Formats: sequence, structure tokens, C-alpha cells
Amino acid sequence: MSRLVLRGDEDDYKMSATTINVGVIKLGAIASAPLLDLMFDERAERDDMNVRAFTSGAKMDEESAVGPVEALIAWKPHFAIVVSPNAKLPGPSKAREMLAEAKIPTVSISDGPAAKAFYKKDDEGKKKPHVLEGQGFIVIPADSMIGAKKEFLDPTEMTLFNADAIKVLAVTGVMRAIQNELDTIVAAFQAGETPAMPQLKLTAKKAVKCGYFKNPYAKAKALAALTIAEAVAEITSEGCFKTKEADDYIPLVAAGHEMMRVAANLSDEIRELEKAGDSVLRNPHVSKGKVKTKFGLMDKPK
Amino acid sequence: MSRLVLRGDEDDYKMSATTINVGVIKLGAIASAPLLDLMFDERAERDDMNVRAFTSGAKMDEESAVGPVEALIAWKPHFAIVVSPNAKLPGPSKAREMLAEAKIPTVSISDGPAAKAFYKKDDEGKKKPHVLEGQGFIVIPADSMIGAKKEFLDPTEMTLFNADAIKVLAVTGVMRAIQNELDTIVAAFQAGETPAMPQLKLTAKKAVKCGYFKNPYAKAKALAALTIAEAVAEITSEGCFKTKEADDYIPLVAAGHEMMRVAANLSDEIRELEKAGDSVLRNPHVSKGKVKTKFGLMDKPK
Amino acid sequence: MSRLVLRGDEDDYKMSATTINVGVIKLGAIASAPLLDLMFDERAERDDMNVRAFTSGAKMDEESAVGPVEALIAWKPHFAIVVSPNAKLPGPSKAREMLAEAKIPTVSISDGPAAKAFYKKDDEGKKKPHVLEGQGFIVIPADSMIGAKKEFLDPTEMTLFNADAIKVLAVTGVMRAIQNELDTIVAAFQAGETPAMPQLKLTAKKAVKCGYFKNPYAKAKALAALTIAEAVAEITSEGCFKTKEADDYIPLVAAGHEMMRVAANLSDEIRELEKAGDSVLRNPHVSKGKVKTKFGLMDKPK
Amino acid sequence: MSRLVLRGDEDDYKMSATTINVGVIKLGAIASAPLLDLMFDERAERDDMNVRAFTSGAKMDEESAVGPVEALIAWKPHFAIVVSPNAKLPGPSKAREMLAEAKIPTVSISDGPAAKAFYKKDDEGKKKPHVLEGQGFIVIPADSMIGAKKEFLDPTEMTLFNADAIKVLAVTGVMRAIQNELDTIVAAFQAGETPAMPQLKLTAKKAVKCGYFKNPYAKAKALAALTIAEAVAEITSEGCFKTKEADDYIPLVAAGHEMMRVAANLSDEIRELEKAGDSVLRNPHVSKGKVKTKFGLMDKPK
Amino acid sequence: MSRLVLRGDEDDYKMSATTINVGVIKLGAIASAPLLDLMFDERAERDDMNVRAFTSGAKMDEESAVGPVEALIAWKPHFAIVVSPNAKLPGPSKAREMLAEAKIPTVSISDGPAAKAFYKKDDEGKKKPHVLEGQGFIVIPADSMIGAKKEFLDPTEMTLFNADAIKVLAVTGVMRAIQNELDTIVAAFQAGETPAMPQLKLTAKKAVKCGYFKNPYAKAKALAALTIAEAVAEITSEGCFKTKEADDYIPLVAAGHEMMRVAANLSDEIRELEKAGDSVLRNPHVSKGKVKTKFGLMDKPK
Amino acid sequence: MSRLVLRGDEDDYKMSATTINVGVIKLGAIASAPLLDLMFDERAERDDMNVRAFTSGAKMDEESAVGPVEALIAWKPHFAIVVSPNAKLPGPSKAREMLAEAKIPTVSISDGPAAKAFYKKDDEGKKKPHVLEGQGFIVIPADSMIGAKKEFLDPTEMTLFNADAIKVLAVTGVMRAIQNELDTIVAAFQAGETPAMPQLKLTAKKAVKCGYFKNPYAKAKALAALTIAEAVAEITSEGCFKTKEADDYIPLVAAGHEMMRVAANLSDEIRELEKAGDSVLRNPHVSKGKVKTKFGLMDKPK
Repeated sequence: MSRLVLRGDEDDYKMSATTINVGVIKLGAIASAPLLDLMFDERAERDDMNVRAFTSGAKMDEESAVGPVEALIAWKPHFAIVVSPNAKLPGPSKAREMLAEAKIPTVSISDGPAAKAFYKKDDEGKKKPHVLEGQGFIVIPADSMIGAKKEFLDPTEMTLFNADAIKVLAVTGVMRAIQNELDTIVAAFQAGETPAMPQLKLTAKKAVKCGYFKNPYAKAKALAALTIAEAVAEITSEGCFKTKEADDYIPLVAAGHEMMRVAANLSDEIRELEKAGDSVLRNPHVSKGKVKTKFGLMDKPK
Repeated sequence: MSRLVLRGDEDDYKMSATTINVGVIKLGAIASAPLLDLMFDERAERDDMNVRAFTSGAKMDEESAVGPVEALIAWKPHFAIVVSPNAKLPGPSKAREMLAEAKIPTVSISDGPAAKAFYKKDDEGKKKPHVLEGQGFIVIPADSMIGAKKEFLDPTEMTLFNADAIKVLAVTGVMRAIQNELDTIVAAFQAGETPAMPQLKLTAKKAVKCGYFKNPYAKAKALAALTIAEAVAEITSEGCFKTKEADDYIPLVAAGHEMMRVAANLSDEIRELEKAGDSVLRNPHVSKGKVKTKFGLMDKPK
Repeated sequence: MSRLVLRGDEDDYKMSATTINVGVIKLGAIASAPLLDLMFDERAERDDMNVRAFTSGAKMDEESAVGPVEALIAWKPHFAIVVSPNAKLPGPSKAREMLAEAKIPTVSISDGPAAKAFYKKDDEGKKKPHVLEGQGFIVIPADSMIGAKKEFLDPTEMTLFNADAIKVLAVTGVMRAIQNELDTIVAAFQAGETPAMPQLKLTAKKAVKCGYFKNPYAKAKALAALTIAEAVAEITSEGCFKTKEADDYIPLVAAGHEMMRVAANLSDEIRELEKAGDSVLRNPHVSKGKVKTKFGLMDKPK
Repeated sequence: MSRLVLRGDEDDYKMSATTINVGVIKLGAIASAPLLDLMFDERAERDDMNVRAFTSGAKMDEESAVGPVEALIAWKPHFAIVVSPNAKLPGPSKAREMLAEAKIPTVSISDGPAAKAFYKKDDEGKKKPHVLEGQGFIVIPADSMIGAKKEFLDPTEMTLFNADAIKVLAVTGVMRAIQNELDTIVAAFQAGETPAMPQLKLTAKKAVKCGYFKNPYAKAKALAALTIAEAVAEITSEGCFKTKEADDYIPLVAAGHEMMRVAANLSDEIRELEKAGDSVLRNPHVSKGKVKTKFGLMDKPK
Repeated sequence: MSRLVLRGDEDDYKMSATTINVGVIKLGAIASAPLLDLMFDERAERDDMNVRAFTSGAKMDEESAVGPVEALIAWKPHFAIVVSPNAKLPGPSKAREMLAEAKIPTVSISDGPAAKAFYKKDDEGKKKPHVLEGQGFIVIPADSMIGAKKEFLDPTEMTLFNADAIKVLAVTGVMRAIQNELDTIVAAFQAGETPAMPQLKLTAKKAVKCGYFKNPYAKAKALAALTIAEAVAEITSEGCFKTKEADDYIPLVAAGHEMMRVAANLSDEIRELEKAGDSVLRNPHVSKGKVKTKFGLMDKPK
Repeated sequence: MSRLVLRGDEDDYKMSATTINVGVIKLGAIASAPLLDLMFDERAERDDMNVRAFTSGAKMDEESAVGPVEALIAWKPHFAIVVSPNAKLPGPSKAREMLAEAKIPTVSISDGPAAKAFYKKDDEGKKKPHVLEGQGFIVIPADSMIGAKKEFLDPTEMTLFNADAIKVLAVTGVMRAIQNELDTIVAAFQAGETPAMPQLKLTAKKAVKCGYFKNPYAKAKALAALTIAEAVAEITSEGCFKTKEADDYIPLVAAGHEMMRVAANLSDEIRELEKAGDSVLRNPHVSKGKVKTKFGLMDKPK
């Protein structure tokens, strides 16, 4: 990615009053995580904010979470993001508790199973968001579980699956939906406010709205890609947790990765469809977190 | 990715004498970086090592590097990895110096332009590796620069480019080459030794050896994909650094991303070719960093 | 299809003692239906059996079912097949009752929602098959509902969706699974027995066994294709039954068709993968319902 | 397909004075046949007409034709359709004679070789349509013969070939041309008239007019797809009728299926091309056989 | 192509007694022509023969033919090749006559319509080869006519069509069939004999034998590709010669090019299928016209 | 290609005063060469000019060049074109000298390495064009060297590589750039002038301007395709000239061909993208070298 602080239009670079600091905790991995801290400043041009990430590698146990979270708290960021698979597991739960105690506003980003961590039935049996004070969440059902069996998953297959999943999330609008939520938080802090943290289950239908597709078939295909990506979890979790024999689970986890590959290839088709109409939305951060948008490739962002 | 500590064969899980700690510094981003800390333990099953990453988000200046590096040094890992674009820039250079001073063995992972940081001409004018004491490097020319212009690069395009680049690095053997180097270091520490750090320019020809392709056309295509990926940098760097008008540089940076997309699609073709012969190599970490290998999908790793 | 009674090997054509008659009722349409009556005798070479189909076009109400069923009963076949969407609806239910009364052994072929018609919880709350006497069923969850909204579905789109769905069912093994069940019934009648009718929920995992894939990735891809095809129903039924505004349901039903298209394209890929290994199983009816098999394209069926 | 009588706009559902009954005879199979009876009422919403099909499975001999035709005649429909390969063969010829005798207006739908049944040279040696009284025909040269050799064609390959052929007929305009002809007949009967039956050889050039392609390359590709599909018959008929050794005819019939697969893939490309311009024509039956049309996916049919 | 006389194995380069000279006349263009003179010596390594081509550009009239043919005759080659579309036209006919008179053995290479130039019915009405003394021919029906209308064909489209057609001829075996015929003639001259010129109609079935496909589906697909390529001529000649209005002929000639594109893409698929099995035949000229063969990419030619 | 002098609009065919003669020397082969002489008159309709080509087959030595050049000089054309790989080699150099001596204006067309023949550093060390009097050049860096090793390159592979390279040159604008330069020369001679010969290094950026792409992504992809094609030479020349062992150079030359195949497939994608917008530029020679242009397929050229 960008290697230098590249200079743009003069007036894009007036100093802002406050520099916002964002701390990111990554525990284990989902496809939304690897590039998350780079999404605030995709060309490394902003001097109005700092992002630091602290990770425990692949580990998600409580003990592994403590160190990175302590380091983050020590840095005293304006707010924190905890990104992990299944946010109900001990590691991410511990992280949320520590951050709540430290009174650092926090948004969790997690996958489908995480819904259990963030919704609780009310007296009428209706599911209601349920979070620690000052916290919020973005649940992404399409960010499905990998096929984590040793007969199948080596580092190469792991990176490949994530590449496919990232492609799906990027093209269909999920990445932009996350960007929008985070931009809103940062903007509020820049304006001196303490924003409410989002409480968002990013279903396929909600995500594709952030695709801003001009071609209606691109939108339909994006819904299709996300529905396929979401269905991956059914078959990988069956393979990982409910099947005993390698002869039985290898085909299941392999099928899950084939599905994600198919969703990625469909995503490529979607992007090409929008290229055919020269209608790819781009919404770069141009200065101080200000976001401009453009559709035609040769247009100036506005 | 994997959400739980999944249990494998009993004998894979005897305790090792030493737990190895690995600290990763990520400054800015190249495609080798986002999933790097997960490659030691792709299914989150190892209890013989800990990996922690500390990042400065997209920033690569000296000041942004100091905080994460101090946090890493405080953790006292067995060795450190500094992954960044152009390792010659102030941020990564500062990181290497601080780690050298702290006497933490360090390997830098960087892209093509980084060669200037790690090679120096000797008296006869021959390029020789040149590093701080106890340090090494892996230079990856195919991990080409992104098209970092605000008219083109928004967070969505940034994640897409990285997804394509990761796919290329995974399929062609680059990711496995990195894995091999890092596994070797960890194994040495586990054996109580202080290993020499690698000094490796991972050319296309070296990388495809780690693809372990059984089909010779798969190998030829992998060479092709890496050569294309490497050529991306020529056109994106021309677009980013040597071209003034948006009308001129937009087509160039867009062309660079089209090339990476083409290399990713070719990589998909390569993987499918190996699937057709049921000869995809998998080399998972099965226990304590022990790596087993297999080719047939339904085989047991050996 | 074949236009003439083509002659094969002499000894394949000795007369059988009994000619078996099969009556097929088609009410409405699922993708398993259109070519079902041709699957007994794919090259029009058999003189040991007759198949007649009677259909009510697209209609599935009770009244529309009566005529075709009466015509079938009048013909007195050895057994009957009732193929329809959702077998619990009035038309197919009426057909089953009339055939039970007429003591004609009957197998129903239907889609996912039909499971409700054929399974009932026992005292312990466990689902058990539940059928009229002398009857059986094949439930095919991957034979998902079409996107039946007038803003989207015209005769052209209807035939296209069915073409895609038929391709999925053919390549993945579903069609062969149906063939096997029906061949078994016919063979029993030919042997003078009254066979038990099958009680089969043809899940993806069961269906791919009838794909007889030699390449394990072909099998994994077949599981993927069927899982995608099955997930189509979630989104088309949401679009057809749970969404009011055209602006909301058009993208949903369109997405369902995009998913089936993707599953069909993946099926094409599967077939090509098996062609690459010259390992496509073929099991033609060669005489009197005798089925031979072969893998190599140039092999003689055995 | 649609499982329920779905309700549309109120004013689309006023009762019509007459309910039209259509009887369909299917003898053997061509790709135009399997979904034909569903094309009158693709969403099962019409209460102004009934369609019943009667088939002899794969058989095309005279004896097999008699039963279904008698059943149809007994039902006394307003008109009949006889769909079969090569309409000159005994079965379909017998069917036409019986229907002429019963004074039921009849339209035959058949493939290229059927032209011999429906055209006769006049005194000047010019080919003129030649039919029984009250009868007509639609000859579809692109609906080519399958590769009916036992070493190649099993039920799975048979369904696959038909899926490909149906896709070609649907996308290129053939299915819509058939729909138009049949809609015209039904409308005439609804208006109390006895319509002239069509006498139509549906060449590629005529068919693509019913594709209503907005993109001229889509039209050119449709011509290409139909020309390829039509050329299939040359090679499959050579393989089936003029070649003795399996080693010689297997490659020929396999080549025929590869050609149809190629034509189907090209058809997919055509549809995607029209999706790129959001210009897919849809002409659903919206009520009482009334047909509305639309181009933009999100448009209301008019 | 190759720029230098590259040196191979020592023993491949002993001098031969005679140097063979081959003169090529190209009049107008078919896809077999542009690279024909390079097929004798694909790496520019042979010192045992010389090839010179003389062309009249696109022109095929008698006058345009005379000059190049005179130049060729003046050079006195061992034999001549006349390659042109429709060999019955005045230009190529004149060339054959002049070469016959000059007693230079000649083989004509031409397309489908050329059959009329080289076959004549005998007394029993059977088609027999019919050539001038010392002459022969290779007729290639798959080398179909281009869509030569000014509204469609510019230099770019012309080169594109030829690229597609060359790809088809190369992959399916046509190019190797030509190579074999020409190698045989050269070898005979080198042995001091005057060879009989070939009289060959290179049908699809004959051509694919020179594909030496190991995968039987590759062979079937090659038959398909050639059959499609051959069918191009029907539609382009209709567009060029039998259709008056631009609105009518543009879609026809465009369809012809779409068909050739489809045949080229299928050819690419064929080559990839053989690559998957590492069974691509290569038969390079290794010395003095000696041809060696190999299948595995890493094999030594034998 | 076109077989007859097809007649167009009346006023397109008034006689011109002068008939221009163009002589083409082809030595060895690059992809720009095989169809070059046909680009002046792509439908064989012009009576205002003659083109004759004279070739030495694959050979590029001085001796092989002399004969064809003498024949050309004897014909006394208005100007000459010398097309060959690496124009610095003895054969093409000799040709240029002979043509200079004969005072025939000459333009050389060659590949990347040819730049050394046509540029010389001036006193300030700046590269300046440097040619014989009355001569010019078009250097095409994307017309990369073939993989000329006997273990890899047979006539079939040679034709395939050229087909791919021609496709790239045609779609991206290179062919049109050449056409434009040559049309300009011819027009000047027709006007009675002696034109200056072009001095043009046809970089990717210059070439795509002649693609006249309306879709900006088509342009970016064309830049990508040409950059890939240009990078082919690095790997094939390494394989051909700098690598000794077959085990080492076979993968390299094979990779070069895979890259050109990828560039060709990307070119196909580009053309389809422009077809989607019905914006393919066509600029046919309509009469006397007059070039008209059109974008919409059904438009009249203007």
C-alpha cells in the first residue's frame, strides 16, 4: 500500500483541532479484521488521527486477550474496536469488560454467532440489543467461519479463504458499511461529541445499500454473493463441530471454501458489471476524515 | 477463522519445554502483512507459542513507529518481525534500530523497493546483504505498491487490491516461503538455539519452488502470475510519483489494479489446475509447530 | 432427443416377461419434473416398459389435480409418481389420496417444504416418515422455489431458471439418485415383487454419493453447488411470501436466480473437472432396464 | 416453480367470459417440450385457462401415441399442441391425423427434420407449407438432436444436454417466439374466434427478433448461438445414424454436446450483456393472458 | 519470434547435402496463410532450407498474382505453395497455371469453397481429385471466410478475426496436419525424390487426429471447435453475398465473428485440458527438418 | 478474408490519379508482421494501391535478407516497410542500408530491443532518434519475443503465441496506431508529397490512445494488457539467452507464453466491455484509402 504521505489539494490539508486516536484489538481472525485499521486512512495521508492495533495472533482465550487490551488502555484512545470471531467467547468478552471498566467507548465487530452476545430477549420474548455501557457492535453474518481442520487448513489455504472473503465484503458494500459507521464515530469525536456506538446487524439487505450499485442486477448479484457467503458458515461449522471422521468433514470444509470462492468470483463479476457502466462508487477520505464521492472513473471526487 | 481451540490427535499435544513469543510490528501495509501473525497457528491450536502484533495503522513515519515498537520491546519476545512497505523509509528504519538496540533478533518483511535498505555494494561493486546485527530480511518484489491516488483509492478499492494480491502470494508459493522461514526460526528457538535471521530476496523463481506444484504448467503459470504482480509496481509507482495530472495518473493506477486482478485470476486458475490432479500441497502446523504435509485432499497429513 | 428406436448389442434385447407401466402425475413444476418421464429410457430403446405422464400445467389446486389422476388410474400402471412443488398443498395431497384409494403404489417427488407432508413427530418428538399405505417419497431440498413475481418472472426467465436448476441436479448426482430409486422399483416389479416405496430426503450429502466423483474436489464443489441451490429457497420464499413492495422483492427474487445461475456455473466446472480426469460416470439403461456403467469416455459400458 | 396462486394487482384479476383449455401431447423429447405447458402461466396465477399435457415418455411409435391422444381428445380442449422430435415419424403423424379427425385445431412443434413433414414442393418446385386442415406448425431448427448412443447418453447426460439446449432457446428468443404464437391463439379463442394455426419455420433470424435485444452485439451473439445449436444436429445425426464403430461415433456425439454447451455458455454471456445495460425484456402474463412488458429490472410492467 | 540462430545439440547440426528452397505465394488471406512460411523453421535454426514468401497483399485478381509468381519462378525453388481463399478465383488459378508451366511442383492451400477447384465428378458422378500435373492441395473447411463488409470490418477487426481463427487451427490439429504434409514433401526432396503432392480435404475428423489428444474430451471439443469454425462460413457468406441491406448483413457478419471467437475460446479450453494432464504434444523441428516429439512439458524431445 | 472485390457506395469509388505501391520486407517474425500487408486494404476493395510482401521466412541473417530486398527494389514501390524482430540484427540492418541506397523511403517496424537501432545519445547524453536518410521506425515494446527453445516451441505453439499476441495488439490500439501511421504516409504520396517517415516508440500510453475507448476501464485494462505483454520479453529473453539448463528455461519460456495468453484473455474482456456499451470504434478504409469511423455497431461509417 501507500508508502509515503502523498500530498493532495492544498485546502484538504488544514489542521484539525483534535487528533483522534483509535485503538483496535484483534483476537483471532475474521475477514473483516486484517485490513480494518487501514480503512480509516487508506492512502496514509491523514494527520488528524492515529490508529493502533494490538493483536493476540490467532488466539481467543481470556489470557491472550489481556495483554493487548492492557496495552491499548495504556494508550488511552478516544475509542476502541474489538474485532474477533464469535464475540461471545471468553477472549472478546474479557476485552469488552476491561474496556467498559476503563470507560473507553467500544464497538465490537464480529460474525454471525456473535449475535448471541449482543441480543437478549426482552419480557415479550423479542430480541433486543444488549450491550455494556458505552458499547456497540457490528455483526456481519457473511463473514463466515473458515474450515478449520488440520487435514485441510494450512497457512496457504487460510490466506486464500480470507482473500476470497475480503473480496466479497469489499465488493458487496460490507466494507463501506463498516467505513461509514467508523467515519461517523470519528467525526463525532472530532466535533467534540461522545457518539453513541452503533448497534447494527449487517444483513445482506442492509449491506448492499452501501454498495450504491447503479445497475440493479449488480445489487441482486451482491445479495446473492452475501447469501452464499453467509451459508458458508452452516457447512463449515457442521464440518468443524458436528462431524467426527476426516472422511466426512474434509468434503464439508472444502465445500465451504468452494462456496466462498464462488462468492468471490461472483463479486468480481459484480465489480465488472459496474465498470461496464462506469458507475463504481468511490468514497475516499480526502482530508481530516472528510469523505468525498465519485462514480465516473475520470471524475473528480466531490 | 477458527473460533475455538479445536482438539486434534492426542500425541500432537504434549507440552513443549519452551513457549516461544513472537512480536510483529506492522507499519503501513503490504499484502504480506495483514494475515502474517495468523500464519504461525492457522487454526488457533498451538499452546507452544504466542504471537502479538502492534501496528501504527497506515502510517510509516518515525513517530508513529516508536509507540508500537516500545510496546513490543516491553513484551520481550524471542524475536520480532517488522513488516512494512519500503523498509528504507523512516518508520521501519527506526523500528529496526530500536530492536537492534534492544537486542531482539529481527526479520524485516518488505517489498521490492526495500532491497535498497538491505543490500549494499561491496568493494568490487557487487551487491551484498547488509543488515544490523542479529537482523535479517525477506524482500518480496511481487508485493507491489497499491494505486494510492485519492481519485481512485477508497477503502473498498484498497481492500479489493489487497485481496487480489494476497491471493497471488498464497497460490504461487510466497506465503509458504514466508511460513517456511518463520517456522525455521521458531523451531531453532524451541531447540534452544539463536538462529541466524534469513537474508532472502524472494524472486518469482525462488517463490514457485515453495508452490510444490506437481503440474509443470501450474509452475509456469505461477511464474507468470508473480511476474505480472511484480510489474504492477512499475505502473503504480509511475502513476503515484511521476505523473502530475489526474487524467494521466488515474488510468495508470487503475491499470495497476487491473494487472493485480489478472494475476489473481490466473492464481485461481493455477489452484484449479492442481485440484484437477488432486495434487494441492497442504502443510498445516499440526502440533508444537510441527509441520506435516499432504497432497491428496483425502490423505492424512504426514 | 432420440428420434428412433436405435439398435444396440443383440443380447441386450431379449424380451422380458412383463412390460412395466409407469404413470407420472406432474402438478405445477419443480426442476426435477420436466424430464422425469424420460429418465427411464433416455434413448427411447426400451420395449419392456411404458411411461405416461399426465399434467395440470402450472396448476396445483385440488380441482386441477383430479382430471390427470383419474386418467392415470384408468390406465392402471404398476406404480405412480406424483411430482410437484410443496407436496403438502391441496393438489398433490388429493392426488396421493386418490392413488392410495386406487391401491396404486406411489412415490411422491417434491421439494424442501414437502418434508412437512412426509414427516411427523413421534411420541418422543422425533421426526419419523409418515405416508399413506403403499406410498413413499423423495424430498429434494436443492430443488428450490422459483422467483415467482410478475415484475420478474416471464416464460423466458422461468425456462432459464429451470435450465440452471436442472444442470445443478444433473451434475451433482441428484438426477442419478432419482434414477437409482426408480430403477430399483421397476426392477422389483419386473421380478414379480411389490417393492417398498422409498422414503428419502435427498440431502446434499446423500446426493453427491450418486455423483460418483473420482476427483475429491469435484465432490466438494458438488456439495457447494447443492448448498447454494438449497439456499435459493430462503431468499425466493422471502421475496414471494414475506415482502410487500416491488422495490423490496424484485432484488430478492432476482438474487435467488443469480444464486441458481452461480450453482449451475459451478456445476459446469465440476463436470469439466471430471472430464479433465476422464472420469465422468455414465450409467445408461442398456436393455430391459439393465443399467451398465463406465468411466472412461471411450470405454465400453459394463 | 410457483407453488401458490399468488395475488397481484386487483384489476388484473377480473373474470374472463371463457376459460380456454389447451391440450399438449408430448412424444419423445426435444428441448422445446419439457417446460412448454408451463409457459402459458409461468407463475400459476391464471384462472382463465387450463393446460393439460399427456405424454408417452421417450416413445415415438404409433402405438405409444394413441393412448395419450385419445385421452386428450376425450378432454375436448379448444386446441392441441403436438410436440415431438421429427414430426414425420409414425407417432406424431398418427397424433396429427387423430386430432384432425376429431376436429381439434392443432399446432405441431418440432425440430429441423420436421420440415419434411410440413413443406411440399408445389408445381413450380417451390416449397410450400402443407398441413392437415385446421393445423399448423412451428419448426425449430436450433432444437437439435441429442447424442443418443448408449456409450455416451445416460439419464444424467440427457438432462444436462436438455438444460443447455433450453438455456439457448430461452435466451435467444425462441421461447418467447413460441410464447407469442401460443398467446395469439389463446387470445383469439378468448375473443370467440377460431384462429388460423401458425405456419412458422423459426430460423435463427426470425427467433432473435423475439429476443428484443437492445445491445446489437447481444443480437449478433444470439444469431451465433442459434447457428451453433443448429449445427449440433449435423454432427449428432452423423454420429447416431451414419457411423458404425463406437470409436468413431463417441467423439461425434460428444462433440455435439460440447457444441450445445458452448452455445449455452454464449447464451449466458448474452443475458449478462443485456443485464449490463439493464435492458432485459420481460413479458409476463399478468392476467387473463394479458401480456405486459418491461425492460428495466426495477420498472413496473406495462 | 526468435531473433537469433540459436544453437542446439551438436549432433543436430551436421550439414545436409541439399538445401531445399520453398517458395510461398500468398494471395488475399485466410488464417492458414499469415504464419505459414514460419512453420518450416519455427525457431529460425535450420540451415538446410530456405523459405521465401511473395504476396499480393489482399488482392486476388489475375493481374495482382502475376508479379509475385514471376518473382517466385525466377528464384527456382524446389516446390511452391499457393495459399489463398477460394482457389477457384482468377488469381490463384493463374498462379497454379504459371507454376505448372514452369514445372515447379505446387501445393495449394485454401478454404472450403476451394473444393470446387480441386474435385471433379467422374463418369459415375463421384467426386474425384482433379489437379494440374505435379500439383496437389490441402483444403481446410474450418478456415472460414471473414465478415467482409465495410460497416463491420476494419483493420483491427480483421486482425482480431484472424487471431481467433489461427488459435482454432493451431489447437485443434490443423496447423500440425499442414506441418506434417509439408515436412513430408521437404523430406522427400532432401532424399533426392520428387514427392507426390498431397490431395487432402482436411475435415474436422482428419484434423483432430493431428491434435494427438490424450484426453478424449479434448478431442471431442476439438471436433466441436472445428465444426463451429466451419459453420462460420455459412453465415458470413450469407452476409457478404446474399444480403443487401446493412441492417440485415451487419448482424450476420458480426455473428460469424462471434462464432469464431467462441471457437477460439473453446480451443483455449482444449489446450488447458491437455495442460491439466501434462499431455500437450510438441513436435519441434530439431535439425535438418528432423521432427522430434514430446508430451510432458519437462520431457526431452525424442 | 474477403474473396471478391465487393462494391460499396458509388461515390467511394472514383478513380484516384495515382496508384501507390507499397513494398513490405518481412524478416523473421513478430506479431505485428503476419497481417501487416493486409491492413492497407482489409476487404480487398481498393484499386488505388498495391501491396507486395517479400519474406525470408524465419531467417534474419544478412544473406537471407538480400534476395527479398532486391526483389522489392526491382519493383520500385513508393515506399518500403521492413518488419522484423530486433532491427539491430544483420538482416534488417542490411535491408535498411540497401533501401537507403536505392532511395526508397522506408519505415522499419520492430520490437523493444530495436530501440537500440533507432536511438542514439546526443552530446548531452539524451536519447535522440537516429536513422538513415529518408527512413523512420515504429518500435513496439509490447510485441515481445517468443519462447524460442526447442523443448517448448513447435509450429503449433508458435502459431498460438502469435495468435495471442496479435489479439493483444489488435484490441489495445497498437494495430490501429500502425494503420494510422501507414495511412498517413500513403495519403501524402497520393497528394504528391514525399512524407517524412514516422519516428515512433509506441509505448503502452501512446498505443491506448488509438484504442479510442469510451469506457475508461477499457482503457485502463488496455494499459494493463500492454504492460503484461511488454513484460513477456523479460522472461522469454532470460529463458532464451541467459539460462542454460532445460529444467530452468522451460518454465521461463512457458511462463512467457502464459503471460501473453493472459494478456490476450484480458484483451477479449476489453473488447466485450466496449461491446457492452456499443462503443467499439471501427475505422475501415472505404475508398481510395479514405478512412471512415463509427462507434455504434448499426451505425453508418462517417
